[in-house]
Parts: sequence; C-alpha cells; structure tokens
Amino acid sequence: MKKTFIVFEGSEGAGKTTVALRLKEYLQKNGSRVLFTKEPGGDDPVCRGIRSILLDPVSLKKFSHISEFLLLEGDRAQHVEFTIRPALEKSSPFNFVICDRFSGSSFAYQYFSRRAITKDWFERVDYLATGGVTPDLTIVLDIDSEKGSQRTNSAGKKDRMAKESSLFHQRAREGFLAWAKILNTKRKGSCVVIDANRPLEEVFSDVIVAIEPVITASK
Amino acid sequence: MKKTFIVFEGSEGAGKTTVALRLKEYLQKNGSRVLFTKEPGGDDPVCRGIRSILLDPVSLKKFSHISEFLLLEGDRAQHVEFTIRPALEKSSPFNFVICDRFSGSSFAYQYFSRRAITKDWFERVDYLATGGVTPDLTIVLDIDSEKGSQRTNSAGKKDRMAKESSLFHQRAREGFLAWAKILNTKRKGSCVVIDANRPLEEVFSDVIVAIEPVITASK
Repeated sequence: MKKTFIVFEGSEGAGKTTVALRLKEYLQKNGSRVLFTKEPGGDDPVCRGIRSILLDPVSLKKFSHISEFLLLEGDRAQHVEFTIRPALEKSSPFNFVICDRFSGSSFAYQYFSRRAITKDWFERVDYLATGGVTPDLTIVLDIDSEKGSQRTNSAGKKDRMAKESSLFHQRAREGFLAWAKILNTKRKGSCVVIDANRPLEEVFSDVIVAIEPVITASK
Repeated sequence: MKKTFIVFEGSEGAGKTTVALRLKEYLQKNGSRVLFTKEPGGDDPVCRGIRSILLDPVSLKKFSHISEFLLLEGDRAQHVEFTIRPALEKSSPFNFVICDRFSGSSFAYQYFSRRAITKDWFERVDYLATGGVTPDLTIVLDIDSEKGSQRTNSAGKKDRMAKESSLFHQRAREGFLAWAKILNTKRKGSCVVIDANRPLEEVFSDVIVAIEPVITASK
C-alpha cells in the first residue's frame, strides 16, 4: 500500500489542527497508522528551536523578512529529512502522514502576503528544502480573514503571526487560494479548497469526501 | 569618509577573533570608531537564537545539511539588515565594521567541505541573504587544519563544529583558499591570505600591512 501525504493549509483560525487531528482519528478507526506532524516546529530539537524564534512575540520586533523565510525553509528541510520522508518510506509503519502547514504557508505568508521574496525565489528555496517531496493531497481550509482573527483572538493566541495586520491576513487568504490554483494546474485534483466558515461537522464531512479518492488510489 | 567593511575568515583555531579584536583596538587608537561583530549569532535576539541551535552539541545529532545552510543564511540576512548595513550607512557613527566570519564561511563549510549544496545554490541564497552587501576587504587566516584543531582542543571548545572530522576541516581550509581566489578574481586585492601558523605578532603585522590600502582608499 502506497503511503499518503496529506497537508492542511489555511489562515490562522481556520481550524486546521482540529480538523487534521480529527482526520487522524477517523483514519485510525479505519485501521490506518497515521503520523500527525506540523510546521513550523515538528517534533525535533532543531525544528522546535526554529519555532521558538519564529513565534517569539517579545524579542522579534526587528525580524528580517528574508531571515524569517530562510528559517521557515530551514525548518522544512529538517522536517522533511527526519520526519516526513522517513514516514513515507516503504519500510515505515505509517500509512498516512498528515501535516499541519507545509510549502503553501510559505507561499501565502512570505511570498503572497509579505512579498518578502519573489515567486521564483520562493519556488527555488522551497524545492531546496523539500527535495521534491510533495503532498498527495493539500486541503486548504478557507476562512474569511476577520472570522479567522476573531477565532484566534478568542482562543487567546498572542504570538507574532496573530498580531499581524488585517491586510496581512487578508492577503494570506488570497495567497492560499492562489496556491490551490497552482497545485491544481500542476496536477489536477491535488488540492481541494473547503469553506471553513461553517460549523466543524460540515467542514469535516467535506474533508472526508475530499480524501476518498486519495484513499482509493493508495490501495 | 567612506565606511569600511572588513571580514575575517578561516578555520577554527586560526585566531580570527583574537586578531579581529586586536585590529579593532589598533583602529580605535588611531581615532576610528569600530563595530566588531560576528557570525553566526551577532548581538541580536534572532541571531543568538539561531546560533544556539547551530552550536548545540547535544540535541543536534540529526541535523539536515540543507537546514544548517538555510539557518546560517537566515542568520546572515538578519545580521546584514539590522547590524552590518546600518553601521555602513553614511549616518552611522562607525568608520569600520569588522566581522568575524561572513559569506566565505558558508562557502567553505557548507559548500566546499560538506557539499550540502551546489556552488550555484550557495551563491543564489547567499545573495538573497546579503542583498549584495560585500566586504571591502576579506582577510583569510590560513592555518594547517591539524594545528587549528589542536588549538581549539586545548581551548576546550567542544561544540558541534569542533567535533567534525579532520577531513571536514582539511576541506574547509581548501575552501577558504578557493574563496580567496574567487574574491580576487571578482575584484583584485579584495582578499588577502595570511599564514596563521605563525606567532600572533607576525600574523597581526601582516594584517596591518593588508589593511593599509583599504584605509588609504577610505580617506
């Protein structure tokens, strides 16, 4: 059985982690072994170190956008080499790898919203970091940026990203939609956009519909 | 008066920091204002965070070479934007910026010795990080790699870099010499190689000779 790599993308407050963990549970109940991981800062000392730099709200009043981009890609390189790639190997015990954020988040935040780099630069450095490892399916949870911000605020999140301007988050949302188009142009059906403004149950049932073809293909 | 950017490069144990700080003192005695800084981990919270990841001897048994490279370039991007570039601006109070390690160290260690990336990749990402800020003069302190290792061992240094194989350090030494050639091909006289196997006094007097033309040019 082929290993399947599923990525959740979307703005803060879209419910990525909740939905991803629920999908993990669903797949496990169906007899699959699932690795859940996230970016930035998967379960690895280097990644955790990078995450603590990236999300520090206090010390990071001066943070170069290029540096931020390179750190995120450095996190990805480490994450792919020691977590994602091994879990997708034939000998691994897992059938599924579910990752909360991946290349699409760098595209949406660092390129599309911040314009810290050109698209060409994003693509080159991201390829260096991933070594060509790409998700079988990317699910973009699309949420109105104000609604997303409300959710993160009420959840009490106060990290650096949550404090960005509403324009930043609005552009990021557009960035995720642009990313979905790029993925589907490269390989039709490789990305599904789900309206995450609705209640969790509705969102989750759309996720299940979205992953069925991937599950079938992996058998 | 033009601001002058001087970089010291060379293997561990070559005496870069000692010589650089001595040069700072020498220039200050001659009435100049000098900023001394270093890579990785200049005086900046992001850079210090990156340095602590890079040099951690315990947690880093698994460290992707690509991630290491991107973190070093991320450190450089932050360092250039908030420390080096402002100090070289017309309005800055400094006449000289002396930096202990810069692009040449990524060339020697990450490209030449580790072969983690191609030369083309090194050049592209390093340009992204530096934004084209280049030293007026690079001084490579060239030391026999065994002698360099002896010095770092007797100094009790036990970080990750000091623990690399002798082949790694031997190749890095060749890498620094190759870097000197590249710089001098791009701009004749922009890099000087000094034999650092000799006593400090002799090395330092060669450094003074090397910087004279740069000082003259900056007046």
